[in-house]
Amino acid sequence: MEKINRKVTKANGDLVSFSNEKLIKSLKKAGASNDTIAIILSKVKKEYYSKMDTKDIFKIAFSLLKNMQTPVAGKYKLKKAIQELGPSGYPFERYIGEILKHRGLQVRVGIIVQGECVKHEVDVVAKKGDKHYMVECKFHSNSKTTCHVKTPLYIHSRFLDIERAWRKQFGDESMFQEGWLVTNTRFSEDATQYGTCVGLKMVSWDFPEEGNLRELIETSGLHPITCLTTLTKKQKQKLLKKFIVLCRDICQNEQLLTEVGVPQAATQQVMKEATAICEVTP
Amino acid sequence: MEKINRKVTKANGDLVSFSNEKLIKSLKKAGASNDTIAIILSKVKKEYYSKMDTKDIFKIAFSLLKNMQTPVAGKYKLKKAIQELGPSGYPFERYIGEILKHRGLQVRVGIIVQGECVKHEVDVVAKKGDKHYMVECKFHSNSKTTCHVKTPLYIHSRFLDIERAWRKQFGDESMFQEGWLVTNTRFSEDATQYGTCVGLKMVSWDFPEEGNLRELIETSGLHPITCLTTLTKKQKQKLLKKFIVLCRDICQNEQLLTEVGVPQAATQQVMKEATAICEVTP
Repeated sequence: MEKINRKVTKANGDLVSFSNEKLIKSLKKAGASNDTIAIILSKVKKEYYSKMDTKDIFKIAFSLLKNMQTPVAGKYKLKKAIQELGPSGYPFERYIGEILKHRGLQVRVGIIVQGECVKHEVDVVAKKGDKHYMVECKFHSNSKTTCHVKTPLYIHSRFLDIERAWRKQFGDESMFQEGWLVTNTRFSEDATQYGTCVGLKMVSWDFPEEGNLRELIETSGLHPITCLTTLTKKQKQKLLKKFIVLCRDICQNEQLLTEVGVPQAATQQVMKEATAICEVTP
Repeated sequence: MEKINRKVTKANGDLVSFSNEKLIKSLKKAGASNDTIAIILSKVKKEYYSKMDTKDIFKIAFSLLKNMQTPVAGKYKLKKAIQELGPSGYPFERYIGEILKHRGLQVRVGIIVQGECVKHEVDVVAKKGDKHYMVECKFHSNSKTTCHVKTPLYIHSRFLDIERAWRKQFGDESMFQEGWLVTNTRFSEDATQYGTCVGLKMVSWDFPEEGNLRELIETSGLHPITCLTTLTKKQKQKLLKKFIVLCRDICQNEQLLTEVGVPQAATQQVMKEATAICEVTP
């Protein structure tokens, strides 16, 4: 395969050498064949311009993938698909809830928890045995939005307030195992440093190296409905409003498509894509 | 004096009975004579319309005051003057710093303090003896903006992080006396509840009943330059950029006016107003 040796602009504005390996790895991970990858690399090289955004490289790759291998394209646009869970943060909370369920936790989404001082709305409260995990989800529609240090600072106070209330109620054996802060974009450096230092589990798109959001999604195989290239934006929004966030839910209930106005003629195509995405081994 | 018995709309949108006493009290506090107050009340009654904003009543009162008693008008528009310290939050921080200095504290504004986990920018660090006060200033240009619970939550974590670092460095005798959170608008109910519960001193325009921001300013007599009706908005902004926030500084240094382009002919008028505002007993 041909190599691309150029400078590209990352989502955060940094100018870096383009990583041939990363593009190949991500295409392979999504299930693209070697032939498809070779075609994509050659096309990207041809269309390259100085300091091109990695986002634009992704667009070229995606539009080719979409024509060649539809279910693979759906998986490849994962990061973008997560952004499309917006504009509100609720579908993302629900989506994170589903991922935790898949890992064997009992999950409640968007519940009010009484702290020692005030009540707090916690995005996801998960439970395994008598251990509780509180998960705050910071969703951003814009991939460039950074989650700054103020977020883990206020989340930590919130968790401390709840922990104090629980200790009073249940005694010193801590019911509260761990606080998580999950974002679909990235943390600022001091956000990661502070959160890690006070014992929050910090999860962003690509942090930490093991167990980051991308990996959590890929290993669960729970792809969001926004991955589907055969649905319109409006149809996806209607599904999200019904709290349907997973491709799996479509696979299990074709009726949902009719409910959000997908024409009968198009239904089979959507079902085919959804099933293929769910079947691509994680 | 005539009474006004009508419903009015407060800055936060609440519909309440108009308080005759409050208007009279605020006008008296600013130094308005009984005659002036009577004229203002009669004019407000004449121009009243259903569910009128208190802001509009204030406008009528202010425009009359301005014509009748200039220095009094300058003091009366105090809340608005504080809002005009924007758009950035820096002049407000500096202003709060001046008020604390006036109360006998040593003050440093906008400094970086190393916490246990990360470095923090603290708006005002004040000192009296070996006791330290950390003050966070939340400035809002819009009087309707509320300071929500997330703010005292993150401020509390920030202070805890700094306290832990200080304990490590100086031992257990706490150097850190108290954290303050000062806003020029208002706190939400749970913000006040949480902040008070964790031991933050919460100060807003009219909270607590004793020692609120309005009172802190009035008892210090340190009126901001934005009170001056004889300066243009542009001239005020130029002064703020030079870190000049107090009328007192103008009284002590007429040269400042020339530096921000006040024409020679207008200087005496500004000096007269500034001096009168500083002289009106708090």
